[in-house]
Amino acid sequence: MSMESFMNARSVAIVGASKIKTKRGFQAIRTLLDQKYAGAIYPVNPKEDNILGFPCYKSISEIEGPVDMALITTPAKVVPAVLEDCGKKGVSGAVIIAGGFGETGAEGRELESQLVEAARRNNIRLIGPNTSGMINVNQNFNLVGMRDVPPGDIALLSQSGNMALTLITEAKLKSRRGFSFYVGVGNEADLGFHEYLEFFRGDPSTRAILMYVEGIRQGRKFLQQAYRTTLEKPIVLLKGGRSATGRRSAGSHTGALAGMSEVAWGAFKRVGIIVVEKSDQLFPVAETLSSMPAVRSNAVAILADGGGHATIAADILTDLGLTIPELTEKTQKKLRAILPSAASVPNPVDVAGGTDADPSLFADCARIILQDPNVGGLLLVGLFGGYGIRFHESLALMEEDAAHQMGKMVPKFKKPIVVHSLFASEKPHSLDLLRYYGVTVYDSLDIACKCVGALAEYGDYRKAYHAKASFELQHEAKAKPEGEILMEQAIGENRRLLLEPEAKRLLAMHGAPVPQEQVAATADEAVELAAAFDGEVVLKIVSPDILHKSDAGGVRIKLRRPEEIRTAFDEIVANALRFQPKADIRGVLVTPMADPGLEVIIGTKVDDQFGPVILYGLGGIMVEILRDVAFRVLPITLHSARHMIRETKSYPILEGARGGKPFDQKALTRLLLTVSELIESYPLIEEMDLNPVILHHEGLSIADARILLSDKSKADIEAEDNRLALPIR
Amino acid sequence: MSMESFMNARSVAIVGASKIKTKRGFQAIRTLLDQKYAGAIYPVNPKEDNILGFPCYKSISEIEGPVDMALITTPAKVVPAVLEDCGKKGVSGAVIIAGGFGETGAEGRELESQLVEAARRNNIRLIGPNTSGMINVNQNFNLVGMRDVPPGDIALLSQSGNMALTLITEAKLKSRRGFSFYVGVGNEADLGFHEYLEFFRGDPSTRAILMYVEGIRQGRKFLQQAYRTTLEKPIVLLKGGRSATGRRSAGSHTGALAGMSEVAWGAFKRVGIIVVEKSDQLFPVAETLSSMPAVRSNAVAILADGGGHATIAADILTDLGLTIPELTEKTQKKLRAILPSAASVPNPVDVAGGTDADPSLFADCARIILQDPNVGGLLLVGLFGGYGIRFHESLALMEEDAAHQMGKMVPKFKKPIVVHSLFASEKPHSLDLLRYYGVTVYDSLDIACKCVGALAEYGDYRKAYHAKASFELQHEAKAKPEGEILMEQAIGENRRLLLEPEAKRLLAMHGAPVPQEQVAATADEAVELAAAFDGEVVLKIVSPDILHKSDAGGVRIKLRRPEEIRTAFDEIVANALRFQPKADIRGVLVTPMADPGLEVIIGTKVDDQFGPVILYGLGGIMVEILRDVAFRVLPITLHSARHMIRETKSYPILEGARGGKPFDQKALTRLLLTVSELIESYPLIEEMDLNPVILHHEGLSIADARILLSDKSKADIEAEDNRLALPIR
Repeated sequence: MSMESFMNARSVAIVGASKIKTKRGFQAIRTLLDQKYAGAIYPVNPKEDNILGFPCYKSISEIEGPVDMALITTPAKVVPAVLEDCGKKGVSGAVIIAGGFGETGAEGRELESQLVEAARRNNIRLIGPNTSGMINVNQNFNLVGMRDVPPGDIALLSQSGNMALTLITEAKLKSRRGFSFYVGVGNEADLGFHEYLEFFRGDPSTRAILMYVEGIRQGRKFLQQAYRTTLEKPIVLLKGGRSATGRRSAGSHTGALAGMSEVAWGAFKRVGIIVVEKSDQLFPVAETLSSMPAVRSNAVAILADGGGHATIAADILTDLGLTIPELTEKTQKKLRAILPSAASVPNPVDVAGGTDADPSLFADCARIILQDPNVGGLLLVGLFGGYGIRFHESLALMEEDAAHQMGKMVPKFKKPIVVHSLFASEKPHSLDLLRYYGVTVYDSLDIACKCVGALAEYGDYRKAYHAKASFELQHEAKAKPEGEILMEQAIGENRRLLLEPEAKRLLAMHGAPVPQEQVAATADEAVELAAAFDGEVVLKIVSPDILHKSDAGGVRIKLRRPEEIRTAFDEIVANALRFQPKADIRGVLVTPMADPGLEVIIGTKVDDQFGPVILYGLGGIMVEILRDVAFRVLPITLHSARHMIRETKSYPILEGARGGKPFDQKALTRLLLTVSELIESYPLIEEMDLNPVILHHEGLSIADARILLSDKSKADIEAEDNRLALPIR
Repeated sequence: MSMESFMNARSVAIVGASKIKTKRGFQAIRTLLDQKYAGAIYPVNPKEDNILGFPCYKSISEIEGPVDMALITTPAKVVPAVLEDCGKKGVSGAVIIAGGFGETGAEGRELESQLVEAARRNNIRLIGPNTSGMINVNQNFNLVGMRDVPPGDIALLSQSGNMALTLITEAKLKSRRGFSFYVGVGNEADLGFHEYLEFFRGDPSTRAILMYVEGIRQGRKFLQQAYRTTLEKPIVLLKGGRSATGRRSAGSHTGALAGMSEVAWGAFKRVGIIVVEKSDQLFPVAETLSSMPAVRSNAVAILADGGGHATIAADILTDLGLTIPELTEKTQKKLRAILPSAASVPNPVDVAGGTDADPSLFADCARIILQDPNVGGLLLVGLFGGYGIRFHESLALMEEDAAHQMGKMVPKFKKPIVVHSLFASEKPHSLDLLRYYGVTVYDSLDIACKCVGALAEYGDYRKAYHAKASFELQHEAKAKPEGEILMEQAIGENRRLLLEPEAKRLLAMHGAPVPQEQVAATADEAVELAAAFDGEVVLKIVSPDILHKSDAGGVRIKLRRPEEIRTAFDEIVANALRFQPKADIRGVLVTPMADPGLEVIIGTKVDDQFGPVILYGLGGIMVEILRDVAFRVLPITLHSARHMIRETKSYPILEGARGGKPFDQKALTRLLLTVSELIESYPLIEEMDLNPVILHHEGLSIADARILLSDKSKADIEAEDNRLALPIR
């Protein structure tokens, strides 16, 4: 059943309708009336005959006409029964207002399961529970009770009703734009963020999507839908609950899995979501992205009528990663021709009083600047809009002229204009005109700059999107039978940890450069094996009962002479047995001592929200103390493998920063891709640690490898949302 | 002459007075009239008889009565002559509006010097040039022409007229507070930031100081005054021109030395200045600090009427370094007694609809929370102020009651309240009441949180201020005659670089643990010297002509046997002569090979704005690639030496993070203090580099030391503003 039928419902039943003015079941009908909803309204309450002029029904199934949507305002416990009744009537969607489900603990979770079961059985999709409701603004289909939601083309998805109220209030007070939809997602018991995204992607009335999120239940499905969506429409997102206290606060009211891991942040960015960190930037950024073309070159110009604003704007844009390039000589010449000699024209352009007598000169400057090939957009900062207020009202007319001109330049040059005006809150007509053309105007320099930054970020992403990954896990696509057997053996022995030689063999099967190492059963055999290597060797205990080999005295390095090797073998075995007298000792691994090089770490784990992810970083203090690591949701492409290496702060060391030769990044990239392939191929792998990998100027050595298997069955794992192979439809 | 006489002038001459309405010389008189300035106004213009009803004077010296201040609106070239005339009249202060001085290049700088000379000769203090002017708001003494500057107790110092206009407009639109003074500092040709600070510190009408700064000419004097000022009144500062483009923009309009070095940022923080990075936080933070008591414990409570705002506020406050502690069981019990069962009371406190029927309950909650000993302040977030708007207007009266109650709690509990209200821009009376009591109210969560953060930062500083340093350089206080001689010798030989043995001798004189090393003239002597050490030695060439010893093949390490030492000696000398055939070779330094340990770097330099500064960091990649270093303005105290070690990200390594023993932080602290003492004692030292210092678990080894002397004379150095020993008066 498509969501269309209930998101654009032509008929609605209000279950729990009431005559009491403070009740939700009254307010809902009142609001639909006030908002002039054109569809059919059916109050349902067995105890009433008539509410606000509508005949009242004893149950949904009694209603004669079709019912697309049910707004259920009854207490939690009654809801499953109401859904059964909805099912009989063929209702396709329901909004469940009541709290008291998953967010309250075990009992609530049980009730929530019943709810979902009832919905599935009856082919009903649910919004909520524990939600403020939903509004289809353009259809006046308002099930929330918030009045005066300005109509427009931004779809709003929020896990907090108050944040929605905040954003709607901001839109009303500070812009000309508004909303196509509002959905309070509530507990996401049935419909999840990813499904709303999919709906809004296809919805012709929506041009941008604005999200306030505390936790996402089905991260991988969300990423897949977000990936498809941002190719067509921008998504702007604020993540609440990054801090421990924030998570505590979020947990108490949504019951969602909150938390802003580095994984989530990186994943959002990777699918082109514009992640905003300040709540007061959220609506402005969404507004700007919905109405302005993206900046295509990451380079913008600043036009100012005074130095201070230009200086601060340049600082902020630089912090945001944009460049403020020098304008071409031709552009500068044209600007000099119309501006006073004190003006500064390289960029930022400071008109230095040149607009005092005629502020329409701003439009002339803007036109010249936007024609410059070095420039992808324009930020106008300072007093525009206030000339008429500060000096003489005749100047207001010239500002209005400039606003018309600038508004029309945007589609013509396909470059955005964003305006900072000190006078925005005094609401001069010229600024309202700019907004009419979709030019956003804010009185905060920080917000105006962030809007420009978001346009550049979205432009950059759109240019490079084809290099991004799909998050589609093709389970077992490349699994080897020998690999499967190896894991089955371990599981047969009731082991979750693969032995080091097993882990390395698995890596080798998939082409990783694993040393030619072997397990010796006796000291003599160890000497013999070592003789085959030209150089020093390392001996390590091999036992499923010894997880931490070094702690058990089970490792000896830099061995060369036969007597050294023999002694080391005996000591290792003796140490192991002292450490764990009943240890099942499978032998001693004899492996060539790796040449010195740069230690790096590659690891994988299964994230609660996003499924399998990979971590890369330089070994030692860089990881342990400075947390200088890069994360990606698996699988990764060649492009993302390269990028994750480069985005660590320590990258210059790989490049040979300290006067040395560069290390072999190609080999490292190949290894990252091999690890990605392994995790895809063998869903049973829960964690993998290659630590350390020693990077050489040519090639690399995997000095240790650890693979932990899941204790779930393969079928269970594949059924998990975040592990499921979900092809992008 | 005290600044009082012209900052609170009772008479003013307008030089360049005019009848033409667009001229500054007309507008200034018009403004003084409109603003009802009570002092005497004397227009000066040889070509006019009367302007706006005032008799016009041919020159200042013709005026009969006393003249405290001159506003000079004439073109740049005439100004020095005008100042001579002012001198004759005994004018004590002058505002120079004209640009065309230091900011325009060499010719302008020359004119600016003439200006300053004329002022000094005539005992006149200058504001500007290149300024918008100054306003003493409470005296209606407005020399700028900005109307409607709201009076209040915040002194505004700005290097940009537009930023001043921005802040004044914000104050008018979004607060009940205003300004005691505005000064556009312009080029700071005479009066500098530090002198204004000193004046505002003593000014009874000023309670907080708000600064927009692009560059500071006399950084050390500024720090000294700021240090004294923040003990009495808060200073809030935004630094423009952090980015390269920002600096270019700043340079074009102020001519000041712009740039936000790590040094400046650290120095500002160290003297208790609240450094703000977002321009839209600048006024709110100043307003809050001027009216609210500081948070004394860094711990605050959040009170909300919905989860989303509480979650976001908790995230932002955590980012700002505050804690949101759990309330005591007693407090939670009291809250539970008045709130519905769905409320969350640990902190954040979410009333969960409990205030819907009576928002005055917020005051009851606030009272309970502020009595909690764990809590140093309260942030109220959400819808307060909007209950009357959203629901029923009778609720507005209850909100007003709550506002009165909360306003009175602040002085009672000596704990601040800051309010975020979604409805701030709708200006309900309750929010205006809160502002009347000094409670700041903003509709941006980010801004409200930043205000709380600033109160906590200021509270922390005030608690710990006694541990801060004075920036007073007591030149030569601890200099040793042998040290002076050593430098004189080098200068006598026309050398700026001390030889390594000289640098180490200087360090040893002041107690640094320098190895017992000596210079050998022959290979035999080297062997003999080495024999005195128990272990390996290092040999290094000693020559004033060889700066980079390693590049010249002038270093050999890990030598032990006599034949090794002999060969190394000969090779080093041969290499040096090959590298630089005419090198003056003073011998070969024989020094014990330091035990392995942790490499750190200590360096000093003379910063343009702040004079001598010290740098500390871990050696190698930590400094070179990650720039993980700490800076301080010298001299440092024991407290700041300890803190600079701890503030580096790599500090856990010193603590033995990787499972090792901790390194000797006491020895490192002592060495930092020794370096500080050296720089104070010998003003001739321009740069010092101890690189590397090898830190052991006990003690440390200074493996190399490099000292560069200034090419200026000692007298010249001591005359420099940033090197001057300025005792704090």
